[in-house]
Amino acid sequence: MAKINPHYSKLGSGYLFPEIARRTRSFLSEHPDATVMRLGIGDTTEAIPGPILEGIREATDKLGSPRTYSGYGDSEGQMPLREALSNHYHGFGVDVPAGDIWISDGAKSDSANIQSIFATDNVVAVQDPAYPVYVDSQVMSGRTGPAVDGCYEGLVYMPCTEDNGFFPELPDRKVDLIYICSPNNPTGAVATHEQLKMFVDYAIENRAIILFDSAYAAFIQDDTLPRSIYAIEGARTCAIEISSFSKYAGFTGVRLGWTIVPEELVAEGTSPGEVKALWTRRQNTFFNGASNVVQGGGLAALSDEGLAACRMLTTYYMENAAIIQEGLDRVGITTFGGKNAPYVWMKNPNGLDSWTFFDKLLGECHVVGTPGAGFGPSGEGYFRLSAFGHRDHVKTAVASITSNLKLG
Amino acid sequence: MAKINPHYSKLGSGYLFPEIARRTRSFLSEHPDATVMRLGIGDTTEAIPGPILEGIREATDKLGSPRTYSGYGDSEGQMPLREALSNHYHGFGVDVPAGDIWISDGAKSDSANIQSIFATDNVVAVQDPAYPVYVDSQVMSGRTGPAVDGCYEGLVYMPCTEDNGFFPELPDRKVDLIYICSPNNPTGAVATHEQLKMFVDYAIENRAIILFDSAYAAFIQDDTLPRSIYAIEGARTCAIEISSFSKYAGFTGVRLGWTIVPEELVAEGTSPGEVKALWTRRQNTFFNGASNVVQGGGLAALSDEGLAACRMLTTYYMENAAIIQEGLDRVGITTFGGKNAPYVWMKNPNGLDSWTFFDKLLGECHVVGTPGAGFGPSGEGYFRLSAFGHRDHVKTAVASITSNLKLG
Repeated sequence: MAKINPHYSKLGSGYLFPEIARRTRSFLSEHPDATVMRLGIGDTTEAIPGPILEGIREATDKLGSPRTYSGYGDSEGQMPLREALSNHYHGFGVDVPAGDIWISDGAKSDSANIQSIFATDNVVAVQDPAYPVYVDSQVMSGRTGPAVDGCYEGLVYMPCTEDNGFFPELPDRKVDLIYICSPNNPTGAVATHEQLKMFVDYAIENRAIILFDSAYAAFIQDDTLPRSIYAIEGARTCAIEISSFSKYAGFTGVRLGWTIVPEELVAEGTSPGEVKALWTRRQNTFFNGASNVVQGGGLAALSDEGLAACRMLTTYYMENAAIIQEGLDRVGITTFGGKNAPYVWMKNPNGLDSWTFFDKLLGECHVVGTPGAGFGPSGEGYFRLSAFGHRDHVKTAVASITSNLKLG
Repeated sequence: MAKINPHYSKLGSGYLFPEIARRTRSFLSEHPDATVMRLGIGDTTEAIPGPILEGIREATDKLGSPRTYSGYGDSEGQMPLREALSNHYHGFGVDVPAGDIWISDGAKSDSANIQSIFATDNVVAVQDPAYPVYVDSQVMSGRTGPAVDGCYEGLVYMPCTEDNGFFPELPDRKVDLIYICSPNNPTGAVATHEQLKMFVDYAIENRAIILFDSAYAAFIQDDTLPRSIYAIEGARTCAIEISSFSKYAGFTGVRLGWTIVPEELVAEGTSPGEVKALWTRRQNTFFNGASNVVQGGGLAALSDEGLAACRMLTTYYMENAAIIQEGLDRVGITTFGGKNAPYVWMKNPNGLDSWTFFDKLLGECHVVGTPGAGFGPSGEGYFRLSAFGHRDHVKTAVASITSNLKLG
């Protein structure tokens, strides 16, 4: 008799964002006249710039003639796109050979799938709070026990708190795989060179591997902050980087990302190149390459014209972040992040817990945000507001918060 | 210290198609003047019809204005596309509610990923020969022992031979998950109602689940043959169907497929709806929906105009199949399939083994095909030729086989 994967039942009540959607629908059904303003999911709202759409159109047109038609591509992605990414990294001083880059349908898929090339008995460390996909993919793959007090047994949580500036100390025991996200979702904190170096040194010493999510790197305004883990010496032997076109080219629904597995990377008992070969084998079996029309858009996004257009998009969202932060400052709410990341991380007023504040913000201000507790136990008491939104919508939401939130 | 997934090392020398590519490159480097004709990988070659490309373009244009822009979609896919698929099934007399359909980036991903919602101690049966992804995804997920004499320990192989018309008998022991592909890749055999009913009855009796791959259903010419497992009574309680736009809309590189998990499907200890919920949870965590521009193309492919254009494409490829089959018949080679599937399955002349015949066909005729042994031990001694190709290319390849193959 067919048996289901027993690990799924360890998961909480569902993925965070569907739960937010459920509560929002419930509120709307009770208040059908209310207009809800969403600063919840980190989803882009502005149009994709013309030069980038043109890249998609050109790739589409090619499929309309048998002379230029192409079918299956390499599961690694199209070489011109991999080379353009390599050049892009080179542009901010980081050396990433095109042959170490795999194009994918997005950073979410890659950050969930990357664990599958590693043994189930690795000890895994996550920042707390963290993007839920890192944790849930470990649970579903059987690397954890059940959740006890909001923490899955067997996972090592590295608290990110106001005291440590939302970047964790080194794990307090030996770990094998370490997820780091910078600029961070949800806290908006960006790791400095020194902070990343501390983890790279730890990984080299303990032969651990860092899984570095740089999906928000394009939002870094301060040029002294690292935009890639490979800005740190030695990282090529111990770090995999996962990134995305989603947020800065407006590709959240178009789907395109990439993962870097350096030739030099080693795990226990492997020679250089062997971990890379595992990822190739995984992608060759479980994936068939990102869409060719979408890769055309990615290539256009990396042209000079495309990059300039992307910078206008990121600037727009960062102005939103400033508007949110100023509004919250005005009513005395403490905020973090938002300077080099499109997320404002706020401390809930009056010590409210995350879901209570979610319901309060929705009920009093008709604004949907994301409860910090949804990202892990150290997120409790905090709340994430996203800078993705139309300007007038963001302004209205902030005005509603500053006018209607009862801070008692 | 980070440890790699130990199961990967059980895999053979690499995924079949990269190995073919390697041998072809090696031949070309030794014979730089040769023109190699590829009837190997099942990859489409003809242009995507205009009405379908127009669907991609319209979806792309929508992303160019903030009023019509959309970001993340449901990981289940866009409801209009799910409804159009439901209608499409209805058109050939099969009832599949839109709510049971998940849109994906292709049947390859889904057929590799579907095993992850099931426990690792299920006993898995595969047709032999079979599409390598079914087997490799099981190996990499730890459901098998090492390969011994070409068979992975723990997997149940169901031989498909000339004697049984390339459709297997019921497994000779109790199994929990059963992969069936019809029209079959690689043999081109199509299961009858009676044959599928035998498996559905077995699955109901043993509470097993059938994983049914119908990616080639659009190539069925004989209307008495089932185009979906759900044409069989009772299948909704025991079968998952995986399918694709790849081959009939020319979407191999565009990437779009779907999977059906019926509400009524049950596994051990689950109520109706629970297995479906597992797949939703899996997709919500490991996937972020198929590309929105690509889904626009899928919707157009299911319009009356789109379907008519797809029929012209499938007819074209089926004419290729007839040309291949006629040529091989002429020189006395025994062939199978090719009537309701875009694959011609041939018995190697003089009892040659599959890779020897691969090298011979490449060396003597400059034609690349696919060794039957690459699909499993029962494929040994057979060879797959694909009907995907430009007409003149297929004709030249067939002429080269009939003129140059030394049958001695």
